[in-house]
Amino acid sequence: MIKQIDGWLTAPKGFVAAGVKAGIKKSGKEDVAVIMSEVPASAGAVFTQNKMCAAPVVVSREAAAEPYAQAIVVNSGCANACTGARGIADAREMAVFTAEMLGIPEKSVFVCSTGVIGHFLPMAKIKQGIADAIDKMDVTEGESTALAIQTTDTFVKNIAYEFDLCGKKARIAGIAKGAGMIHPNMATLLTFITTDAAVAPDVLKRAVRATADKSFNMVVVDGDTSTNDTMIVLANGMAENEIIVSEEHPEYGVFFEALLRTAQDLAKMIAHDGEGATKFLEVNIVGAASFEDAKKAAMAIAKSPLVKTAFFGEDPNWGRIVCAAGYSGAALAADRVTLSIGGVRLVENGLNVGVPLEQLSPIMAEHDINITVDLAAGEKKATVWTCDFSYEYVKINGEYHT
Amino acid sequence: MIKQIDGWLTAPKGFVAAGVKAGIKKSGKEDVAVIMSEVPASAGAVFTQNKMCAAPVVVSREAAAEPYAQAIVVNSGCANACTGARGIADAREMAVFTAEMLGIPEKSVFVCSTGVIGHFLPMAKIKQGIADAIDKMDVTEGESTALAIQTTDTFVKNIAYEFDLCGKKARIAGIAKGAGMIHPNMATLLTFITTDAAVAPDVLKRAVRATADKSFNMVVVDGDTSTNDTMIVLANGMAENEIIVSEEHPEYGVFFEALLRTAQDLAKMIAHDGEGATKFLEVNIVGAASFEDAKKAAMAIAKSPLVKTAFFGEDPNWGRIVCAAGYSGAALAADRVTLSIGGVRLVENGLNVGVPLEQLSPIMAEHDINITVDLAAGEKKATVWTCDFSYEYVKINGEYHT
Repeated sequence: MIKQIDGWLTAPKGFVAAGVKAGIKKSGKEDVAVIMSEVPASAGAVFTQNKMCAAPVVVSREAAAEPYAQAIVVNSGCANACTGARGIADAREMAVFTAEMLGIPEKSVFVCSTGVIGHFLPMAKIKQGIADAIDKMDVTEGESTALAIQTTDTFVKNIAYEFDLCGKKARIAGIAKGAGMIHPNMATLLTFITTDAAVAPDVLKRAVRATADKSFNMVVVDGDTSTNDTMIVLANGMAENEIIVSEEHPEYGVFFEALLRTAQDLAKMIAHDGEGATKFLEVNIVGAASFEDAKKAAMAIAKSPLVKTAFFGEDPNWGRIVCAAGYSGAALAADRVTLSIGGVRLVENGLNVGVPLEQLSPIMAEHDINITVDLAAGEKKATVWTCDFSYEYVKINGEYHT
Repeated sequence: MIKQIDGWLTAPKGFVAAGVKAGIKKSGKEDVAVIMSEVPASAGAVFTQNKMCAAPVVVSREAAAEPYAQAIVVNSGCANACTGARGIADAREMAVFTAEMLGIPEKSVFVCSTGVIGHFLPMAKIKQGIADAIDKMDVTEGESTALAIQTTDTFVKNIAYEFDLCGKKARIAGIAKGAGMIHPNMATLLTFITTDAAVAPDVLKRAVRATADKSFNMVVVDGDTSTNDTMIVLANGMAENEIIVSEEHPEYGVFFEALLRTAQDLAKMIAHDGEGATKFLEVNIVGAASFEDAKKAAMAIAKSPLVKTAFFGEDPNWGRIVCAAGYSGAALAADRVTLSIGGVRLVENGLNVGVPLEQLSPIMAEHDINITVDLAAGEKKATVWTCDFSYEYVKINGEYHT
């Protein structure tokens, strides 16, 4: 039994947060936030695989190696990426300063940044912002927190659920930002999830990794992996459920489902908010020889500029879709491949079924469109979420000047 | 000593060709061509790695397994892809019909098609076209041949060279088509190269593969690999040079250089003619741990929609370029990476050098732009050619309807 509730990151018991305007963003909007659990929380995190990873990622990886954490400090407007040793010192100072103000160990603090690459953090503003955010933190400031992590997002990405766990009510909530690699130098997918469920650190860490692979790692806007991508989950146990100490626990599945649903909801919101997006596309691959193959084929389709521009043009161009599956590297039986758009079968046994394309017009005119390809090579499947490529995408990314 | 000469595929001795209007293309332009060597020629070919490969690729792979070949028959306007068993029978019939008309074995004929995916070939028109082309074939019809392989190309891609080989004059010439995956369902990179150099079949086959890896495989327009991509080289030996029977032959290098130059010229023309392209970009990676790494990094940069739209906007957005290198999977030393655009160093030791971006304006305003990234991880290098992403790309690919 899981139900959506109103609320922000502070909906789970024992979490406070706030976002403030520290003057880092040119727009003057919220740009520094602190999120804290009243008690040490089991912590799980995953980070960008980009080798040019940003300084805060280096510092947060150290926090992620610990079993527990208690706070997240984040700024937008400056990514602190490609900033060398000074950037790492600055990121560490954000953690130390936050830890001292909160009276917790430095390693209990995650640090995140998002914004322009190649500039140093304005540390005086950052520190003032952190002090102000800590001053303001409470359970009512979830929205200012969500605003403080945004860059070019066109809407706030927020979700909260309540669910029964071992006879107790538990809550889980998340926020995310992202809309491309993202906007001109404004890197990053950031997502923070809080829950009051009691879960052992090692179980949570594995759950977070598994969740990322089925949610954020299945979203593609333009195929660019940013320098700052970070997902952090804090589980503080204040729901007082019997602690979940292994994947064999009878209610582990309940917790995992709630975490996955929260992450998938946020992941889909990111695809919905892709830069210049006019369509939300769900690419389903079935009949794959392995999950890896299914993901490969789905990603090739979702990343193909030819497929993405076709959907922008509301053209059910199935040739481009099977072509992308073909070059993805996934095993497939070319003479048994099937393809459907919006439930209408267009390709069967690798051949054009001959559906009059007018018949597809109402489906192609919708905002949310499903594509399903059966590779006829096995039993595995995967789903990737993406958006189309529009004039607006070129405009946003081409007309912006560094 | 290699020098460019006027002429087409028929410039090397002993080759004839012609293109005719067979009524397959809606535009009414040339759409069937036959290219023939008077004598059996050493033959080398490489094909698309796409698993949804088109019927003509299946048939041509059989011809490529033979040491010698004598003719190429090609049509545009219909790709004969996703056409199942009937498609393969049709492709085979093209080869058989051509072979019979020319009085040569079926396995001596390569078959190529390019155009819309998912439709059967109009065989009556194809056969009439083949008969007409054979009737018209001579040394003066190189241009009609080049026109007959085009789809949305905005200019003809043709090059011819003369060079000294073992004391004889040899010639090499090539044509290509391509401009995206390509246009809406109009798949394909096709390239045909003729030479009168005498080269043993096995040497030629290896040379063709090596050449493809340094030319056509280094071009990316939108990252989509078509169902029909084909490169064929015929070397008929009529220059009467001492035959090159191994890579150890003292003049093998001369031949390889001429072949590579021809292929690279055509490859660059394809990038120049990318759909909607306003810029030609040469992406050089140096300091890589391996050639594979260098290619991976160059490809990631060349395929990145964020990089491509930035160049369209004439924005020297180096953050996107190092970010793409970072997620490419190539080994790099993040704190020693350097990046230059048009010879101006923008990043050193992974850090922003702080060059005023106005200083880059004249470079960014040019049509041809060089990008060089040093990964600081080794000694290997690679070069990839690509183009920018413009409104026109979205228009061409989004507004076209199947």
